[in-house]
Amino acid sequence: MAILLINDDGIYAPGLYKLAKKLREKYEVVIVAPDREQSAVGHAITLADPLRIYEVKQGNDFFGYAVSGTPADCVKLAIRVILKHKPDLLISGINQGANVGASLIYSGTVSAATEGTMLLIPSIAVSLDTHRSDADYSASVEITAQIAEKVMNFGLPGGVFLNVNIPNVSLDSIKGFKITRQATTYFDDFFERRIDPQGRTYYWMSGTMVEVDRGEDSDLMALRHRYVSITPIRYDLTAKDEISTIENWFKAK
Amino acid sequence: MAILLINDDGIYAPGLYKLAKKLREKYEVVIVAPDREQSAVGHAITLADPLRIYEVKQGNDFFGYAVSGTPADCVKLAIRVILKHKPDLLISGINQGANVGASLIYSGTVSAATEGTMLLIPSIAVSLDTHRSDADYSASVEITAQIAEKVMNFGLPGGVFLNVNIPNVSLDSIKGFKITRQATTYFDDFFERRIDPQGRTYYWMSGTMVEVDRGEDSDLMALRHRYVSITPIRYDLTAKDEISTIENWFKAK
Repeated sequence: MAILLINDDGIYAPGLYKLAKKLREKYEVVIVAPDREQSAVGHAITLADPLRIYEVKQGNDFFGYAVSGTPADCVKLAIRVILKHKPDLLISGINQGANVGASLIYSGTVSAATEGTMLLIPSIAVSLDTHRSDADYSASVEITAQIAEKVMNFGLPGGVFLNVNIPNVSLDSIKGFKITRQATTYFDDFFERRIDPQGRTYYWMSGTMVEVDRGEDSDLMALRHRYVSITPIRYDLTAKDEISTIENWFKAK
Repeated sequence: MAILLINDDGIYAPGLYKLAKKLREKYEVVIVAPDREQSAVGHAITLADPLRIYEVKQGNDFFGYAVSGTPADCVKLAIRVILKHKPDLLISGINQGANVGASLIYSGTVSAATEGTMLLIPSIAVSLDTHRSDADYSASVEITAQIAEKVMNFGLPGGVFLNVNIPNVSLDSIKGFKITRQATTYFDDFFERRIDPQGRTYYWMSGTMVEVDRGEDSDLMALRHRYVSITPIRYDLTAKDEISTIENWFKAK
């Protein structure tokens, strides 16, 4: 079994390293990750700049390939240039920080799983609910390995991948798995206005996620109640139930 | 009525200019567009770099605001910093090149409409099916104005926006409007390997869209048969019909 490991925190991120170490006990693992942090890049791909691939070592051993691009670039380069055979599974993560609700739209972690799914590779995006750089990944690597095994045993429906979020607690404190839906949330963006040394204005973006719904079946609430949240995601965006409504616009003159 | 106009081809793109000219006959139009082309940026937002806003003139008249960021950045800055009131409508476009099938995932044009929808602004993404830089936008600006009026009259369902694609033919040759679904397609990516003057390898990404389905109800086929394609898009990605399948994984030990 061969696993392609991608992330958006960059090839030196601890979540990638720890997961690779665990998975290499049992599987062939190929790492293709951005050469620097690529959070919030959404599904960007690099068409206007050349892409480069660098081989990265850990000590004396080959660790993986670093790419001068986005997570989606990494998946495409892995499949088309680096790997000789299609992997059996793609895992994107383990991301530092949850990807729930509206975050999915901006997430480089999720975009890698979308790209894998488009290329017909069973894919999982995995995030740990903490922004601490010294986070303990020991529970989350165990859980990711369990879910990876489920996916390899059961397979995934066509066009669907799993978005997994893991609470930042010990394995004992996790209450179980919940299959969830994406919570309805949005970002209350805030732009901090500053003046640079040349006297010109610039802005820093920041924002806090506003929770519009608190349904117990959402990714957000599952995570908050210490469940591992697993959301099946389909990248087909058509709002099929609204087609007839819009059709009526053009009938009623 | 105030319309916010965004694009991903940049503030100097002809599709933006022509549409603004048409809409300004009837509406208040504010333009906030990237300072350079931002195609295929997906839903990237700029968190690690500062953002700048420039005022751009056409001759002696103020034309719009250029932003040193992505289409999604433009929407956020427009709403939070530039505009005093929420606009009645957001139009992203008119993009040079169709956004159908898998293209939606990578499209900056579509991401601006997603962002608008998340901020509760009725939104439309509009693309013209040609990559020619000397394209004639006269039919597409008429059609966009018609659809804008429909949206302002009828409103849009919550969380849903319209992805509009217009065939590159004269107004007379267009057969009508079709409410469509996103076609199932993928990109057959190709990486061209080159060597730079320093002897190092780099890659250029390109690709052609492979049509997995040719259903007559798809955006792709409607466009090909000279219909204006209108796809209702929902940015909630949950594959609700698959929740019980995945739940069974964890019941069956």
